[in-house]
Amino acid sequence: MSLIEDLKWRYATKSYDPTKKVSDENVRNIVEAARLAPTSSGLQQFRVLVITNEELKKKIVPIAWGQEIVADCSHLLVFAAWDNYTEERIDTVYDRTTDERGLPRGRFSSYTDKIKAMYLPKEENDNFVHTARQSYIGFGLAIAQAAELQVDATPMEGFDANALDELLDLRSKGLRSVTMLPLGYRQEAADWLVNMKKVRIPVEEFVIEIQ
Amino acid sequence: MSLIEDLKWRYATKSYDPTKKVSDENVRNIVEAARLAPTSSGLQQFRVLVITNEELKKKIVPIAWGQEIVADCSHLLVFAAWDNYTEERIDTVYDRTTDERGLPRGRFSSYTDKIKAMYLPKEENDNFVHTARQSYIGFGLAIAQAAELQVDATPMEGFDANALDELLDLRSKGLRSVTMLPLGYRQEAADWLVNMKKVRIPVEEFVIEIQ
Repeated sequence: MSLIEDLKWRYATKSYDPTKKVSDENVRNIVEAARLAPTSSGLQQFRVLVITNEELKKKIVPIAWGQEIVADCSHLLVFAAWDNYTEERIDTVYDRTTDERGLPRGRFSSYTDKIKAMYLPKEENDNFVHTARQSYIGFGLAIAQAAELQVDATPMEGFDANALDELLDLRSKGLRSVTMLPLGYRQEAADWLVNMKKVRIPVEEFVIEIQ
Repeated sequence: MSLIEDLKWRYATKSYDPTKKVSDENVRNIVEAARLAPTSSGLQQFRVLVITNEELKKKIVPIAWGQEIVADCSHLLVFAAWDNYTEERIDTVYDRTTDERGLPRGRFSSYTDKIKAMYLPKEENDNFVHTARQSYIGFGLAIAQAAELQVDATPMEGFDANALDELLDLRSKGLRSVTMLPLGYRQEAADWLVNMKKVRIPVEEFVIEIQ
Protein backbone atom coordinates (compact mmCIF):
# COMPACT_ATOMS: atom_id res chain seq x y z
CA MET A 1 0.00 0.00 0.00
CA SER A 2 1.03 3.61 -0.42
CA LEU A 3 1.68 5.95 2.51
CA ILE A 4 -1.65 7.68 1.81
CA GLU A 5 -3.49 4.37 2.06
CA ASP A 6 -1.59 3.50 5.23
CA LEU A 7 -2.56 6.85 6.78
CA LYS A 8 -6.20 6.29 5.85
CA TRP A 9 -6.06 2.82 7.43
CA ARG A 10 -4.65 3.94 10.77
CA TYR A 11 -6.61 5.47 13.63
CA ALA A 12 -5.86 6.27 17.26
CA THR A 13 -6.65 2.88 18.74
CA LYS A 14 -8.67 3.14 21.94
CA SER A 15 -8.55 -0.48 23.11
CA TYR A 16 -5.82 -3.11 22.79
CA ASP A 17 -6.06 -6.86 23.02
CA PRO A 18 -3.53 -7.58 25.77
CA THR A 19 -2.93 -11.12 24.48
CA LYS A 20 -1.64 -10.01 21.05
CA LYS A 21 2.01 -9.05 20.79
CA VAL A 22 3.80 -7.13 18.06
CA SER A 23 6.76 -9.04 16.61
CA ASP A 24 10.29 -7.92 17.39
CA GLU A 25 10.88 -7.33 13.68
CA ASN A 26 7.91 -4.99 13.39
CA VAL A 27 8.98 -3.05 16.48
CA ARG A 28 12.50 -2.77 15.10
CA ASN A 29 11.17 -1.28 11.87
CA ILE A 30 8.89 1.18 13.67
CA VAL A 31 11.78 2.47 15.76
CA GLU A 32 14.02 2.46 12.67
CA ALA A 33 11.68 4.88 10.89
CA ALA A 34 12.10 7.26 13.83
CA ARG A 35 15.87 6.78 13.80
CA LEU A 36 15.99 7.70 10.10
CA ALA A 37 13.94 10.87 10.67
CA PRO A 38 15.55 14.11 9.54
CA THR A 39 16.19 16.54 12.39
CA SER A 40 17.45 20.08 12.73
CA SER A 41 21.18 20.16 11.89
CA GLY A 42 21.05 16.35 11.88
CA LEU A 43 21.41 16.32 15.66
CA GLN A 44 18.77 13.62 16.38
CA GLN A 45 17.74 15.39 19.54
CA PHE A 46 15.55 12.56 20.82
CA ARG A 47 15.58 8.92 21.85
CA VAL A 48 12.92 6.21 21.90
CA LEU A 49 12.19 4.04 24.93
CA VAL A 50 10.62 0.66 24.20
CA ILE A 51 8.80 -0.59 27.27
CA THR A 52 7.47 -4.13 27.52
CA ASN A 53 7.83 -4.59 31.27
CA GLU A 54 4.29 -5.30 32.48
CA GLU A 55 4.77 -3.87 35.97
CA LEU A 56 6.17 -0.66 34.56
CA LYS A 57 3.39 -0.29 31.99
CA LYS A 58 0.84 -0.62 34.82
CA LYS A 59 2.65 2.06 36.82
CA ILE A 60 2.29 4.41 33.86
CA VAL A 61 -1.53 4.10 33.75
CA PRO A 62 -2.16 6.67 36.51
CA ILE A 63 0.51 8.96 35.00
CA ALA A 64 -1.45 8.73 31.73
CA TRP A 65 -4.66 9.91 33.37
CA GLY A 66 -5.94 6.37 33.82
CA GLN A 67 -5.73 5.35 30.18
CA GLU A 68 -5.52 1.55 30.28
CA ILE A 69 -4.11 1.33 26.75
CA VAL A 70 -0.61 1.95 28.10
CA ALA A 71 -0.91 -1.27 30.10
CA ASP A 72 -2.86 -3.33 27.54
CA CYS A 73 -0.66 -2.48 24.56
CA SER A 74 2.08 -4.83 23.42
CA HIS A 75 4.93 -2.30 23.38
CA LEU A 76 4.85 1.20 24.82
CA LEU A 77 7.13 3.63 22.99
CA VAL A 78 8.14 6.84 24.76
CA PHE A 79 9.68 9.63 22.69
CA ALA A 80 12.02 11.68 24.86
CA ALA A 81 13.97 14.74 23.71
CA TRP A 82 17.23 16.28 24.89
CA ASP A 83 16.58 18.53 27.89
CA ASN A 84 19.05 21.06 26.47
CA TYR A 85 21.82 21.61 23.95
CA THR A 86 25.39 21.15 25.14
CA GLU A 87 28.69 21.53 23.36
CA GLU A 88 29.47 17.87 24.02
CA ARG A 89 26.23 16.62 22.51
CA ILE A 90 26.73 18.65 19.35
CA ASP A 91 30.38 17.59 19.03
CA THR A 92 29.52 13.92 19.56
CA VAL A 93 27.11 13.99 16.62
CA TYR A 94 29.47 15.80 14.28
CA ASP A 95 32.48 13.69 15.26
CA ARG A 96 30.48 10.60 14.36
CA THR A 97 29.39 12.19 11.09
CA THR A 98 32.91 13.11 9.99
CA ASP A 99 34.30 9.75 11.15
CA GLU A 100 31.68 7.79 9.20
CA ARG A 101 32.20 9.92 6.10
CA GLY A 102 35.96 9.58 6.26
CA LEU A 103 36.40 13.31 6.76
CA PRO A 104 38.69 15.02 9.26
CA ARG A 105 37.06 15.90 12.58
CA GLY A 106 36.20 19.58 12.64
CA ARG A 107 35.35 19.59 8.92
CA PHE A 108 32.01 21.18 9.82
CA SER A 109 33.35 23.39 12.63
CA SER A 110 32.26 26.66 11.06
CA TYR A 111 28.73 25.26 11.06
CA THR A 112 28.88 23.72 14.53
CA ASP A 113 30.33 26.97 15.90
CA LYS A 114 27.30 28.73 14.47
CA ILE A 115 24.77 26.36 16.01
CA LYS A 116 26.60 26.40 19.35
CA ALA A 117 26.49 30.22 19.32
CA MET A 118 22.78 29.99 18.60
CA TYR A 119 21.74 27.39 21.20
CA LEU A 120 24.19 27.41 24.10
CA PRO A 121 23.32 30.92 25.39
CA LYS A 122 19.59 30.12 25.37
CA GLU A 123 17.49 29.11 28.35
CA GLU A 124 17.17 25.36 28.83
CA ASN A 125 13.40 25.50 28.37
CA ASP A 126 13.67 27.36 25.07
CA ASN A 127 16.10 24.76 23.79
CA PHE A 128 13.77 21.98 24.90
CA VAL A 129 10.99 23.60 22.87
CA HIS A 130 13.24 23.07 19.87
CA THR A 131 14.47 19.56 20.65
CA ALA A 132 10.91 18.41 21.41
CA ARG A 133 9.76 19.62 17.98
CA GLN A 134 12.32 17.34 16.34
CA SER A 135 10.96 14.36 18.21
CA TYR A 136 7.60 14.89 16.52
CA ILE A 137 9.14 14.23 13.10
CA GLY A 138 10.29 10.82 14.32
CA PHE A 139 6.96 10.32 16.07
CA GLY A 140 5.12 10.95 12.79
CA LEU A 141 7.34 8.54 10.90
CA ALA A 142 6.94 5.83 13.56
CA ILE A 143 3.17 6.24 13.28
CA ALA A 144 3.42 5.87 9.49
CA GLN A 145 5.66 2.82 9.81
CA ALA A 146 3.28 1.14 12.25
CA ALA A 147 0.44 1.73 9.78
CA GLU A 148 2.48 0.29 6.90
CA LEU A 149 2.94 -2.88 8.98
CA GLN A 150 -0.75 -2.84 10.02
CA VAL A 151 0.27 -2.51 13.63
CA ASP A 152 -2.18 -0.43 15.64
CA ALA A 153 -0.84 2.59 17.48
CA THR A 154 -2.13 5.47 19.57
CA PRO A 155 -0.36 8.83 19.41
CA MET A 156 -0.52 10.23 22.97
CA GLU A 157 0.37 13.47 24.65
CA GLY A 158 -2.08 13.00 27.51
CA PHE A 159 0.18 12.17 30.43
CA ASP A 160 2.09 13.89 33.21
CA ALA A 161 5.50 14.30 31.60
CA ASN A 162 7.29 15.27 34.80
CA ALA A 163 5.96 12.21 36.62
CA LEU A 164 6.95 9.97 33.71
CA ASP A 165 10.43 11.51 33.61
CA GLU A 166 10.80 10.69 37.28
CA LEU A 167 9.49 7.13 36.98
CA LEU A 168 11.78 6.39 34.02
CA ASP A 169 14.69 8.37 35.46
CA LEU A 170 14.93 10.31 32.22
CA ARG A 171 16.47 13.52 33.55
CA SER A 172 19.61 11.65 34.59
CA LYS A 173 19.96 10.68 30.91
CA GLY A 174 19.53 14.31 29.82
CA LEU A 175 16.09 13.55 28.41
CA ARG A 176 12.51 14.66 28.94
CA SER A 177 9.46 12.72 27.75
CA VAL A 178 7.38 14.32 25.00
CA THR A 179 4.96 11.76 23.55
CA MET A 180 3.99 8.12 23.93
CA LEU A 181 3.01 5.60 21.29
CA PRO A 182 1.38 2.39 22.49
CA LEU A 183 1.65 -0.36 19.85
CA GLY A 184 -0.40 -3.51 19.57
CA TYR A 185 -3.54 -4.94 18.05
CA ARG A 186 -7.01 -3.50 18.46
CA GLN A 187 -9.77 -5.04 20.53
CA GLU A 188 -12.61 -3.99 18.27
CA ALA A 189 -15.54 -4.73 20.56
CA ALA A 190 -14.18 -2.35 23.21
CA ASP A 191 -13.04 0.42 20.83
CA TRP A 192 -15.57 3.24 20.34
CA LEU A 193 -13.50 4.87 17.60
CA VAL A 194 -12.73 1.92 15.34
CA ASN A 195 -15.83 2.23 13.17
CA MET A 196 -16.10 6.01 13.19
CA LYS A 197 -15.38 7.90 9.98
CA LYS A 198 -11.97 9.57 9.82
CA VAL A 199 -12.66 13.29 9.57
CA ARG A 200 -10.20 15.86 8.26
CA ILE A 201 -10.45 19.49 7.25
CA PRO A 202 -11.26 19.79 3.51
CA VAL A 203 -8.24 20.19 1.22
CA GLU A 204 -9.39 23.63 0.04
CA GLU A 205 -9.26 24.90 3.64
CA PHE A 206 -6.09 23.04 4.59
CA VAL A 207 -4.02 24.23 1.63
CA ILE A 208 -3.31 27.87 0.81
CA GLU A 209 -1.97 28.14 -2.73
CA ILE A 210 0.05 31.16 -3.86
CA GLN A 211 0.64 30.94 -7.60
CA MET B 1 9.51 0.55 -1.79
CA SER B 2 8.89 0.45 1.93
CA LEU B 3 8.91 3.53 4.13
CA ILE B 4 12.32 2.51 5.50
CA GLU B 5 13.75 2.35 1.99
CA ASP B 6 12.16 5.70 1.14
CA LEU B 7 13.72 7.28 4.23
CA LYS B 8 17.11 5.87 3.32
CA TRP B 9 16.74 7.26 -0.21
CA ARG B 10 15.89 10.82 0.83
CA TYR B 11 18.34 13.48 1.92
CA ALA B 12 18.14 17.22 2.56
CA THR B 13 18.67 18.40 -1.00
CA LYS B 14 21.08 21.34 -1.19
CA SER B 15 20.62 22.32 -4.85
CA TYR B 16 17.57 22.19 -7.10
CA ASP B 17 17.35 22.19 -10.88
CA PRO B 18 15.10 25.21 -11.46
CA THR B 19 13.91 23.81 -14.81
CA LYS B 20 12.37 20.66 -13.33
CA LYS B 21 8.88 20.90 -11.92
CA VAL B 22 7.03 18.53 -9.61
CA SER B 23 3.70 17.36 -11.04
CA ASP B 24 0.45 18.65 -9.58
CA GLU B 25 -0.50 15.09 -8.68
CA ASN B 26 2.68 14.54 -6.69
CA VAL B 27 2.26 17.85 -4.84
CA ARG B 28 -1.34 16.93 -4.05
CA ASN B 29 -0.22 13.64 -2.52
CA ILE B 30 2.54 15.26 -0.47
CA VAL B 31 0.09 17.76 1.00
CA GLU B 32 -2.47 14.99 1.47
CA ALA B 33 -0.07 13.06 3.70
CA ALA B 34 0.18 16.15 5.92
CA ARG B 35 -3.60 16.56 5.89
CA LEU B 36 -4.05 12.97 7.07
CA ALA B 37 -1.56 13.44 9.93
CA PRO B 38 -2.85 12.70 13.40
CA THR B 39 -2.84 15.73 15.70
CA SER B 40 -3.60 16.40 19.33
CA SER B 41 -7.35 16.04 19.93
CA GLY B 42 -7.72 15.81 16.14
CA LEU B 43 -7.63 19.61 15.88
CA GLN B 44 -5.29 19.84 12.85
CA GLN B 45 -3.67 22.94 14.28
CA PHE B 46 -1.72 23.78 11.12
CA ARG B 47 -2.09 24.63 7.44
CA VAL B 48 0.20 24.19 4.44
CA LEU B 49 0.99 26.98 2.00
CA VAL B 50 2.04 25.88 -1.49
CA ILE B 51 4.04 28.63 -3.15
CA THR B 52 4.92 28.52 -6.84
CA ASN B 53 4.97 32.27 -7.51
CA GLU B 54 8.52 32.99 -8.73
CA GLU B 55 8.64 36.57 -7.47
CA LEU B 56 7.47 35.54 -4.04
CA LYS B 57 9.97 32.64 -3.83
CA LYS B 58 12.77 35.12 -4.64
CA LYS B 59 11.58 37.46 -1.92
CA ILE B 60 11.88 34.60 0.57
CA VAL B 61 15.58 33.98 -0.19
CA PRO B 62 16.87 36.78 2.10
CA ILE B 63 14.36 35.74 4.78
CA ALA B 64 15.86 32.23 4.55
CA TRP B 65 19.37 33.50 5.21
CA GLY B 66 20.23 33.62 1.53
CA GLN B 67 19.44 29.98 0.79
CA GLU B 68 18.77 29.91 -2.97
CA ILE B 69 16.94 26.59 -2.77
CA VAL B 70 13.72 28.38 -1.82
CA ALA B 71 13.85 30.17 -5.21
CA ASP B 72 15.19 27.28 -7.28
CA CYS B 73 12.78 24.65 -5.98
CA SER B 74 9.65 23.75 -7.89
CA HIS B 75 7.16 24.20 -5.05
CA LEU B 76 7.85 25.79 -1.69
CA LEU B 77 5.70 24.41 1.11
CA VAL B 78 5.32 26.44 4.29
CA PHE B 79 3.92 24.73 7.37
CA ALA B 80 2.13 27.29 9.54
CA ALA B 81 0.47 26.56 12.88
CA TRP B 82 -2.40 28.23 14.73
CA ASP B 83 -1.12 31.23 16.68
CA ASN B 84 -3.40 30.26 19.57
CA TYR B 85 -6.36 28.15 20.62
CA THR B 86 -9.80 29.75 20.51
CA GLU B 87 -13.22 28.43 21.40
CA GLU B 88 -14.38 28.99 17.83
CA ARG B 89 -11.52 27.03 16.30
CA ILE B 90 -12.13 24.06 18.59
CA ASP B 91 -15.89 24.15 18.00
CA THR B 92 -15.46 24.38 14.22
CA VAL B 93 -13.41 21.16 14.19
CA TYR B 94 -15.79 19.24 16.44
CA ASP B 95 -18.91 20.48 14.64
CA ARG B 96 -17.43 19.17 11.39
CA THR B 97 -16.56 15.87 13.07
CA THR B 98 -20.04 15.29 14.45
CA ASP B 99 -21.70 16.44 11.21
CA GLU B 100 -19.61 14.07 9.10
CA ARG B 101 -20.20 11.18 11.47
CA GLY B 102 -23.92 11.80 11.57
CA LEU B 103 -23.83 12.53 15.30
CA PRO B 104 -25.57 15.39 17.10
CA ARG B 105 -23.45 18.50 17.56
CA GLY B 106 -22.15 18.65 21.09
CA ARG B 107 -21.74 14.85 21.24
CA PHE B 108 -18.13 15.40 22.36
CA SER B 109 -18.84 18.47 24.51
CA SER B 110 -17.54 16.96 27.74
CA TYR B 111 -14.24 16.43 25.93
CA THR B 112 -14.17 19.82 24.19
CA ASP B 113 -15.04 21.53 27.49
CA LYS B 114 -12.00 19.82 28.97
CA ILE B 115 -9.61 20.90 26.22
CA LYS B 116 -11.02 24.45 26.25
CA ALA B 117 -10.42 24.61 30.02
CA MET B 118 -6.87 23.40 29.40
CA TYR B 119 -5.87 25.72 26.53
CA LEU B 120 -7.95 28.89 26.65
CA PRO B 121 -6.50 30.25 29.93
CA LYS B 122 -2.93 29.72 28.69
CA GLU B 123 -0.62 32.35 27.23
CA GLU B 124 -0.73 32.59 23.45
CA ASN B 125 2.94 31.66 23.17
CA ASP B 126 2.52 28.52 25.26
CA ASN B 127 -0.36 27.43 23.07
CA PHE B 128 1.72 28.09 19.96
CA VAL B 129 4.43 25.81 21.37
CA HIS B 130 1.79 23.09 21.31
CA THR B 131 0.22 23.84 17.92
CA ALA B 132 3.66 24.09 16.32
CA ARG B 133 4.53 20.61 17.61
CA GLN B 134 1.55 19.18 15.77
CA SER B 135 2.72 20.72 12.52
CA TYR B 136 5.89 18.63 12.76
CA ILE B 137 3.89 15.42 12.52
CA GLY B 138 2.47 16.59 9.20
CA PHE B 139 5.88 17.87 8.19
CA GLY B 140 7.39 14.43 8.80
CA LEU B 141 4.67 12.71 6.82
CA ALA B 142 5.04 15.14 3.91
CA ILE B 143 8.78 14.41 3.88
CA ALA B 144 8.02 10.68 3.80
CA GLN B 145 5.47 11.10 1.02
CA ALA B 146 7.89 13.15 -1.09
CA ALA B 147 10.46 10.37 -0.67
CA GLU B 148 7.94 7.69 -1.67
CA LEU B 149 7.34 9.64 -4.88
CA GLN B 150 11.09 10.21 -5.36
CA VAL B 151 10.55 13.93 -5.17
CA ASP B 152 13.48 15.72 -3.53
CA ALA B 153 12.77 17.87 -0.50
CA THR B 154 14.64 19.93 2.06
CA PRO B 155 13.30 20.17 5.61
CA MET B 156 14.06 23.74 6.74
CA GLU B 157 13.80 25.68 9.95
CA GLY B 158 16.50 28.19 8.99
CA PHE B 159 14.52 31.34 8.24
CA ASP B 160 13.19 34.42 9.99
CA ALA B 161 9.70 33.26 10.91
CA ASN B 162 8.44 36.71 11.86
CA ALA B 163 9.58 38.20 8.55
CA LEU B 164 7.97 35.32 6.65
CA ASP B 165 4.72 35.75 8.60
CA GLU B 166 4.69 39.39 7.59
CA LEU B 167 5.50 38.74 3.92
CA LEU B 168 2.79 36.07 3.66
CA ASP B 169 0.34 37.97 5.88
CA LEU B 170 -0.03 34.88 8.05
CA ARG B 171 -0.99 36.56 11.32
CA SER B 172 -4.19 37.89 9.76
CA LYS B 173 -5.08 34.24 9.09
CA GLY B 174 -4.35 33.29 12.71
CA LEU B 175 -1.21 31.41 11.64
CA ARG B 176 2.53 31.55 12.28
CA SER B 177 5.13 29.88 10.08
CA VAL B 178 7.05 26.97 11.60
CA THR B 179 8.93 25.10 8.87
CA MET B 180 9.48 25.17 5.12
CA LEU B 181 9.80 22.28 2.69
CA PRO B 182 11.15 23.10 -0.77
CA LEU B 183 10.21 20.39 -3.29
CA GLY B 184 11.80 19.68 -6.64
CA TYR B 185 14.54 17.70 -8.31
CA ARG B 186 18.19 17.74 -7.34
CA GLN B 187 20.96 19.36 -9.36
CA GLU B 188 23.61 16.81 -8.48
CA ALA B 189 26.67 18.67 -9.73
CA ALA B 190 25.96 21.60 -7.38
CA ASP B 191 24.91 19.52 -4.35
CA TRP B 192 27.69 18.87 -1.82
CA LEU B 193 25.53 16.51 0.24
CA VAL B 194 24.12 14.21 -2.42
CA ASN B 195 26.96 11.69 -2.36
CA MET B 196 27.72 11.86 1.36
CA LYS B 197 26.86 8.87 3.52
CA LYS B 198 23.70 9.24 5.61
CA VAL B 199 24.81 9.08 9.23
CA ARG B 200 22.56 8.24 12.14
CA ILE B 201 23.14 7.40 15.77
CA PRO B 202 23.52 3.61 16.23
CA VAL B 203 20.33 1.74 17.14
CA GLU B 204 21.76 0.61 20.48
CA GLU B 205 22.22 4.26 21.53
CA PHE B 206 18.98 5.48 20.00
CA VAL B 207 16.73 2.89 21.63
CA ILE B 208 16.39 2.36 25.37
CA GLU B 209 14.70 -0.97 26.05
CA ILE B 210 12.97 -1.68 29.34
CA GLN B 211 11.92 -5.31 29.45
